[in-house]
Amino acid sequence: MLTEPAKPLLRALAGEALSPPPWWLMRQAGRYLPEYRKVRARAHDFVELCLTPELAAELTLQPIRRYAMDGAILFSDILMLPYALGQKLAFHEGEGPVLERIEDPAGVARLDPGRIASALDPVFETARRVRGALDPRTTLIGFAGAPWTVATYMVEGGGSRDFRRVKSWAYRDPQAFDALVDLLAEATIEYLTGQIEAGVEVVQLFDSWAGILPEPAFVRWVIEPTRRIVAALKRRFANYPVIGFPRGAGALHERYLHETGVDGIGIDTAVPPGYAQRTLQPHGTVQGNLDPVLLIVGGPALEEAMRGLRRTLGRGPYIFNLGHGVLPETPPENVQTLACLLAEPTDDA
Amino acid sequence: MLTEPAKPLLRALAGEALSPPPWWLMRQAGRYLPEYRKVRARAHDFVELCLTPELAAELTLQPIRRYAMDGAILFSDILMLPYALGQKLAFHEGEGPVLERIEDPAGVARLDPGRIASALDPVFETARRVRGALDPRTTLIGFAGAPWTVATYMVEGGGSRDFRRVKSWAYRDPQAFDALVDLLAEATIEYLTGQIEAGVEVVQLFDSWAGILPEPAFVRWVIEPTRRIVAALKRRFANYPVIGFPRGAGALHERYLHETGVDGIGIDTAVPPGYAQRTLQPHGTVQGNLDPVLLIVGGPALEEAMRGLRRTLGRGPYIFNLGHGVLPETPPENVQTLACLLAEPTDDA
Repeated sequence: MLTEPAKPLLRALAGEALSPPPWWLMRQAGRYLPEYRKVRARAHDFVELCLTPELAAELTLQPIRRYAMDGAILFSDILMLPYALGQKLAFHEGEGPVLERIEDPAGVARLDPGRIASALDPVFETARRVRGALDPRTTLIGFAGAPWTVATYMVEGGGSRDFRRVKSWAYRDPQAFDALVDLLAEATIEYLTGQIEAGVEVVQLFDSWAGILPEPAFVRWVIEPTRRIVAALKRRFANYPVIGFPRGAGALHERYLHETGVDGIGIDTAVPPGYAQRTLQPHGTVQGNLDPVLLIVGGPALEEAMRGLRRTLGRGPYIFNLGHGVLPETPPENVQTLACLLAEPTDDA
Repeated sequence: MLTEPAKPLLRALAGEALSPPPWWLMRQAGRYLPEYRKVRARAHDFVELCLTPELAAELTLQPIRRYAMDGAILFSDILMLPYALGQKLAFHEGEGPVLERIEDPAGVARLDPGRIASALDPVFETARRVRGALDPRTTLIGFAGAPWTVATYMVEGGGSRDFRRVKSWAYRDPQAFDALVDLLAEATIEYLTGQIEAGVEVVQLFDSWAGILPEPAFVRWVIEPTRRIVAALKRRFANYPVIGFPRGAGALHERYLHETGVDGIGIDTAVPPGYAQRTLQPHGTVQGNLDPVLLIVGGPALEEAMRGLRRTLGRGPYIFNLGHGVLPETPPENVQTLACLLAEPTDDA
């Protein structure tokens, strides 16, 4: 049997430096695309949208049809996991998510990990549909929120400015808070296992609020559960690639990369590319970190920043991406411009 | 004439390692104190509160009376500068500031730096009153927002999630945006000069949104105007100490410290103390970085974190502080506990 030539995104995650680099964009499916807004209108609410395979598969494929990114990321939301565990969840237009708050061990005890397989089966079905529809060079990316970040939403009941509630609980009673994080780590392993069995070829752990913790808490609630999830996935699926995105981790990116065992590390917009090249790239594939606002601005500023990233990071294992998600105000033609510029093999050769 | 023995905070900023370390807390005057809420009620709005010397001086002194911090920071707000430049400003309870938005060079042209001296004279008068009331070991701290951070509020018209407006302008037309930042740098020099002449003994530049910029923009709009302000103050007032607080700067703290010329660097909660000790403390005084939520939680978690910071940073030039401002939910007695624990000379000896 002939081995299929590996896809660019997977080759980069295995440590190859490719020119041009493979690319995809966080939130590449979304409100900036008119065809997204049409499909969005067909679902009653955002949860239904994520859990209707026909619609979620269509949304996953929309940006690939336009721009032929190297990665198609499953259309879903990190809060589908708490929803599957039985937590009430609603998305209010323009306001972000609202969850029933979990405040104590009794709240954790009410969560039901037994519901994951059935409640999230629509996500697995979406993965099967998309995988069947993708051309052979495009990689299907699955994802979950990392336990710390998911816990912040579960405890705060949504977004937060100061994360006072979740941190107070964690600092006041770290053992009880461990129980929530442990439950989320196990649930995440089950959730990602389901995605992988449905055809997802790489998974990304979004730790959007990794950057608000002092180092000891970062080690306990960011690094440790991530390490555990990565180890479990790699035990079940040999050499399976995992990308971690510890947003805002600053000087802790190095430690995160070394201790979690991820193959790739997403870097946010504020991470200096030279720092990533020197300290991260020798130990893993770097993914990022164009400022999403540059995709709104377009023109020479976009081109210059993109070329700068490729010059610094393109000589090592690198996946081009943003440092944060695509903004709804992004003109779709700027993404097309980016796609064309990225296809040039010059800068990082 | 005998030289007055220098105050602990100034000695630490001159490079001395002191045990116990001098301390103060960002937002040490504020809503968590019942006596603050009483004085607050005497002003019609927050702007009036900041610009009434009698009230602002009283608020500056309140935490010193209770806790005898080594530093008393002028009660004011970083948005007093745009207000003095003629920008409309209002604070709505619990919602943050709202400013008339500046969107283009015409908006910059409407700002009037000629108003600074008169509009901000109440701040200088507050400084004179407080300086006269402080005991000889307490240092009076003045402050301003750094130009980038002040510009974000001026262009966004308040806080922001994605800073789309200010970044779009900066990326699209960097020369025009430079004009705003330059104007703010000059205005800040004038403002801080007035504070210093009124008796302020050290100034801190708050760059709360330093951590959202890619490196080239960080160099241009965070480091460069800060360097310019520091140089101007040190030209006018020989050896005058300046603290910079580039919140969220992550791996860019080193570059900020080396290139701006600040004497002290404030570090936010996410900066690993070991990193600060290794890479920052050899070149400047480090200030920070206890998680403010620990002041809500109190007890063993607070004590352990405080001791950990002193063990790591207390052997070098260090000013104990939080990594962010005191939260309104903080029990005043926890600040008292912290004050007592800090007075012990053991950990960092």
